[in-house]
Amino acid sequence: MADDAVIDVRPIGWVRAPPGSDHQEIEVRSEFAEGLEGVEDLDHLWVLFWMHELSPDRRRQLKVHPRGDRSRPLTGVFALHSPMRPNPIGATRVRLVRREGCRLLVEGLDAHDGSPVLDLKSG
Amino acid sequence: MADDAVIDVRPIGWVRAPPGSDHQEIEVRSEFAEGLEGVEDLDHLWVLFWMHELSPDRRRQLKVHPRGDRSRPLTGVFALHSPMRPNPIGATRVRLVRREGCRLLVEGLDAHDGSPVLDLKSG
Repeated sequence: MADDAVIDVRPIGWVRAPPGSDHQEIEVRSEFAEGLEGVEDLDHLWVLFWMHELSPDRRRQLKVHPRGDRSRPLTGVFALHSPMRPNPIGATRVRLVRREGCRLLVEGLDAHDGSPVLDLKSG
Repeated sequence: MADDAVIDVRPIGWVRAPPGSDHQEIEVRSEFAEGLEGVEDLDHLWVLFWMHELSPDRRRQLKVHPRGDRSRPLTGVFALHSPMRPNPIGATRVRLVRREGCRLLVEGLDAHDGSPVLDLKSG
């Protein structure tokens, strides 16, 4: 793969997380419905999503104060779990409450409403 | 974000995993070196990588036999941890052996040589 190559990633769905709600929903594109078969048997799954609200400026920031705490020294973003990073991919293990067709009702997904979902995995 | 939007992801580095070696290396682009500051203090980190060798045909396969075992029923890829999935992003927690500048020597990374690395996180 060439050094300047860019990978095109097409979301498989989106996060629906109305502010104030204690559940979140993952809406999977209908064309990928088949890929969800068996998900309903899982208690937990991994959600990879794109933190689409992170500005280009914040994506360029390579060192941050851990948890935004200025009393802690600046640390590289790859040594942290901060959302700030060049490729803002979130990876969160969530509890699956239930599946309704192409919608998954989950708990524990720290993603903003509208975040593109890149992948779902067991584990 | 429009429904047909594609996200451009530029790798932050590459996996160097010569066949037969029991360690793997992550080579981070020098422009991201600052983002590695503090990584050397971690025992483990998460590596998100792109399984670049997966063919378009296999990416379209939405149901597979778990672990390739034909005695087990076809199951949706989102209910499994199989490499086959529309966006073949691997997420693996590895042990960090040591950092040498922009190179991280790690153990437990199940990625092929040359795989683009998308992100590194603590945890």
